[in-house]
Amino acid sequence: MILTVTLNTALDITYRVRSLRPHASHRVSEVIERPGGKGVNVGRVLAALGHEVTVTGFAGGGTGRAVRDRLAGTEGLTDALVPVAGATRRTIAVVDERSGDTTQLNEPGPQIAPAEWGAFLDAYAGLLPGAEAVALCGSLPPGVPVGAYAGLIRAARSAGVPVLLDTSGEPLRRGVAARPDVIKPNADELAELTGSHDPLRATEAARRRGAHAVVTSLGPDGLLAATPEGRWRATAPARLPGNPTGAGDSAVAALLSGLVADAPWPVRLRHALALSAATVRAPAAGEFDRETYRDLLDRVRPTAVP
Amino acid sequence: MILTVTLNTALDITYRVRSLRPHASHRVSEVIERPGGKGVNVGRVLAALGHEVTVTGFAGGGTGRAVRDRLAGTEGLTDALVPVAGATRRTIAVVDERSGDTTQLNEPGPQIAPAEWGAFLDAYAGLLPGAEAVALCGSLPPGVPVGAYAGLIRAARSAGVPVLLDTSGEPLRRGVAARPDVIKPNADELAELTGSHDPLRATEAARRRGAHAVVTSLGPDGLLAATPEGRWRATAPARLPGNPTGAGDSAVAALLSGLVADAPWPVRLRHALALSAATVRAPAAGEFDRETYRDLLDRVRPTAVP
Repeated sequence: MILTVTLNTALDITYRVRSLRPHASHRVSEVIERPGGKGVNVGRVLAALGHEVTVTGFAGGGTGRAVRDRLAGTEGLTDALVPVAGATRRTIAVVDERSGDTTQLNEPGPQIAPAEWGAFLDAYAGLLPGAEAVALCGSLPPGVPVGAYAGLIRAARSAGVPVLLDTSGEPLRRGVAARPDVIKPNADELAELTGSHDPLRATEAARRRGAHAVVTSLGPDGLLAATPEGRWRATAPARLPGNPTGAGDSAVAALLSGLVADAPWPVRLRHALALSAATVRAPAAGEFDRETYRDLLDRVRPTAVP
Repeated sequence: MILTVTLNTALDITYRVRSLRPHASHRVSEVIERPGGKGVNVGRVLAALGHEVTVTGFAGGGTGRAVRDRLAGTEGLTDALVPVAGATRRTIAVVDERSGDTTQLNEPGPQIAPAEWGAFLDAYAGLLPGAEAVALCGSLPPGVPVGAYAGLIRAARSAGVPVLLDTSGEPLRRGVAARPDVIKPNADELAELTGSHDPLRATEAARRRGAHAVVTSLGPDGLLAATPEGRWRATAPARLPGNPTGAGDSAVAALLSGLVADAPWPVRLRHALALSAATVRAPAAGEFDRETYRDLLDRVRPTAVP
């Protein structure tokens, strides 16, 4: 089983409007609701790839119930979310039909009480022995200590379970120091961590800070990986138009899949790039286009970076 | 008991953001949730004024549950909402802290099945005999016949219960023909109904179409009423800055309160203007400032319009 942790789960809501104008009133023509939060998205993609996944983290309130109801129908995915008194946050993506642009509104998430954080730590400790790998994903809700991921990484390492960390800011800085197996920052997150805007330098700097492998997502420029086996760059054969929402979560899912298979790094990157590009090409955010995935798996060739 | 009907109830959500920019991602700093829909708002104001109120209409899904949970704590207010399979809509008001402007996103509301509409008609027929007055408020959710309000008005008239109608567009046009006791359009709704942009002419034209009394809200220019007893205009002694959300619903509440007391029209208008202005002055949308209300009640003097 692969374990994904989403401390700040979300009910992701997408609104379609004719044209978003500040200060105006808008009729929403379409409403789509999906369970969200990075680790939940990673879990859904892993389940779609045929893995057994357990998702944990927090869920509460009517929005938490909506998230859990929707997860219940996902084959291969086990819901081990810990109940909290506060309500799971909503994220609202407003899609402007005229421009195709998306405007995002993200609620902060519920306040987590110390006893709730304690209940999560117990649940996590109980799940680790059954996990082949664990992914720690996304932002921390209010009340969770900023060093939370560092503690979860140390617990996983003590249990002999490899860890991937995908977060930003101070939780990333503290987490890296606890020596996770893989981190997957984007260029901005990596620059904030290392102070360097040069992706190659920054990727190496992040390794020196404690990450065993660093896979940086560079948007349309693909992936750059610095690992104990070497450095590679993977790029798509052509620019792919589409919706990048969830592309990073798909890359994380592919990296986890390669991690538990103990695949060579170039193979992991090939899958991560193909799956991530296939997510950009899918009509709905957070899904992936299987044909694009298969096609790109044949065509992507990561190149060694000297 | 005063009965208010809200066929398209809502969970009203207010988000506070630093500055709303289309195509950007925003952290919401504050989330406020309130039960909404015009008739629900009218009911809350009536309950705050000491009236016994029953609210009916539809509620469903997690959002409907959130609406009902919050109504359960309102003293003087009885929840007679009819359950439906679809989810009660959300409305999102995004308040831009920098400009103070509000951007509104309104979901369309759940599809109402014919059997659900039938269940509502039964509930409404059962509630009418106990009502001193009924208010029919707001838009119609998908699936409810466009002539719905006309039928509800006829049923109320048959039961000897006076009716106030507050809606717009085709439901208003059809409703007016069924001869409601009072309608409360704003200037735009009245112009759409009558084709005239002159408020006085349009107000009289609406009476000829079937409304016994027409009270038009003119925003900061106050209220204009054409009734069987005469015509009046009521304006605030000074422009009051604030949030106009809910001001129209407060005017409706005051008009209903005056209707069941059989108060003279100038008294009803005095209350309607004072309560509506006190709502503009309240810090939270849909509440009213009691001091402003009392103060304006002393100072507002409706003037006869020849």
